[in-house]
Amino acid sequence: MQRYFLDQAYQATVEVSGEAHHHMSRVMRMSAEDQVFLVFNDQTAIIAQIISIDGDKVTLEEVEKESLQRELPINITIASGFPKGEKLELIVQKGTELGAYAFIAFPGESSVAKWDAKKQQKKQQRLNKIAQEAAEQSHRQALPQVEFASEKELIARFGAYDAVLIAYEESAKQGEQAQLVQTFQKLNAGQKLLVVFGPEGGLTLNEIEKFQAAGAHLCGLGPRILRTETAPFYLLSAASFYYELSR
Amino acid sequence: MQRYFLDQAYQATVEVSGEAHHHMSRVMRMSAEDQVFLVFNDQTAIIAQIISIDGDKVTLEEVEKESLQRELPINITIASGFPKGEKLELIVQKGTELGAYAFIAFPGESSVAKWDAKKQQKKQQRLNKIAQEAAEQSHRQALPQVEFASEKELIARFGAYDAVLIAYEESAKQGEQAQLVQTFQKLNAGQKLLVVFGPEGGLTLNEIEKFQAAGAHLCGLGPRILRTETAPFYLLSAASFYYELSR
Repeated sequence: MQRYFLDQAYQATVEVSGEAHHHMSRVMRMSAEDQVFLVFNDQTAIIAQIISIDGDKVTLEEVEKESLQRELPINITIASGFPKGEKLELIVQKGTELGAYAFIAFPGESSVAKWDAKKQQKKQQRLNKIAQEAAEQSHRQALPQVEFASEKELIARFGAYDAVLIAYEESAKQGEQAQLVQTFQKLNAGQKLLVVFGPEGGLTLNEIEKFQAAGAHLCGLGPRILRTETAPFYLLSAASFYYELSR
Repeated sequence: MQRYFLDQAYQATVEVSGEAHHHMSRVMRMSAEDQVFLVFNDQTAIIAQIISIDGDKVTLEEVEKESLQRELPINITIASGFPKGEKLELIVQKGTELGAYAFIAFPGESSVAKWDAKKQQKKQQRLNKIAQEAAEQSHRQALPQVEFASEKELIARFGAYDAVLIAYEESAKQGEQAQLVQTFQKLNAGQKLLVVFGPEGGLTLNEIEKFQAAGAHLCGLGPRILRTETAPFYLLSAASFYYELSR
C-alpha cells in the first residue's frame, strides 16, 4: 500500500493537494475507496480511505491508526564527512531504510569533495528527496532531515545529544569492542545519539581531538575495516538488532 | 598497509608472481624491506617483508602472524534472488566488508533480471573480482566466493548448513522478532548459516513453501521494510554486533 508523508499535524479527515494529490490521482490513478498510508509530521501514521478526488485535492478519512511501531526507540543522527561522488546519496537512502533519525554532512579535513554553498543547497534538496522516497518505501513514521554543517557547527550541537560517538577505523584495528554496547545499554527510548563518520581518508587526529574535547567517545564497529558509506549501515543495523529484536 | 590474497597454502617464505607481483612492483612501486599483509587460502594471514623483487616475482618473508581475528565466528552465506541492475555488485561489495563467508545468486520467481549462462559467467567473474577488492580493503582473512545456482540447486544445498533462514518482508510487517536472535543463540563458532533474500518483488508464496519444506525458517529483520540489497547488510551487521561486540 502506498505511503505519503504530509507536512501537517494529524487529522482524522484530511485534504491533500500538491505532489501527493498528483501522485494519487495521476501516477497511481486511485479512486474513491482506495486505501493509503498517511504519515503526519507529528509521526502519527494512519491507514486512510479516499472519499473523493477532484482536479486539485484528494479528501481522505482515517480507517485506523497504524499499530506497528516502525521507528527506532532511540533517535540516531548520522554525521558524515563529505564523501566522494554519490556516496552521500547511498548513505541517506540506505540509512533512512535502516532507521536513521537525521543526517548531517560536514566537510571533513580529509574530504576530497569540496562543495560550495550553491552545490550544497542543490545536493541537500536532492538528498531530502531521496530520504522521503526511502522513508515511504521502508514504511517509516518519521521523515529524516538532511542538513549541512561546518565542523564548528557540528561540534556546537554535541550538547543536544545524550551521547556522541566517533566511528574510528583505528579503534576497529585495535580491537575496541565495548563502547557501542555500553552506549546502547546506557540510552533509553526517546534519547538521542549522534555518530560521526569520517570521509574516505578517515578523520584526522586533529578532528578526533576536537570531537573528544567536546565530549565524543571513540567507538569500534567490529574487526573489519568498513568503507565510509558502509559504517553507518552497520551502526544502524546493530541498533535495530539491539533495541528491536533482542530485548 | 596493502593486503594480498594468495591462492596457496601458508608458507613463511613466499614467491609471488602474476597480478600480485604486478601490483607490488608496478602499481605500488614497492622495494625491498617494504611490508604487506599476505592472506593464504587456508586463512592464515601474516605481515610479510619484501626480500627481493625482479621482473617476474617478489620474494617475501614472514615478519609475524596477524594477531586480530577478522572473520565472523559463524560462516554466513547470503543467497540473493537475482536483483535488478548493479545491485548484486553492491550486495557483494558491502557484504564482503561486513563479513559474509560466501554468496549465492539464484533466479527468483519475481526476478526481472534474466541472465543466460554466458551473462552469468561474465557477471560471476566480475563479482568475484569485486569480492577480492572488498576483502583486501576490509582486511578479511577469508576470500568470499560468489556462485550462481538454480532454485533446485540452492535447495539441495540446505542440508550443508546448520541453519537456513528466509528474510521475509511479511515477517517484518507482522512484527516477527524472535527468529534471528534464537538462531544466533543456537549457532556456535564454526557453524554455518544460510540466509535467503528475495529479489525486488520479494519471494513468492510458492518459493517460501519450498524453502520451508526443505527446513528453512522465516525471519524478520526489524519493523522497517528493507530493499533487497539492504537486508543482507542488516543481517551481517547484526551478526557482527551479536558475536563480535556484545559477547
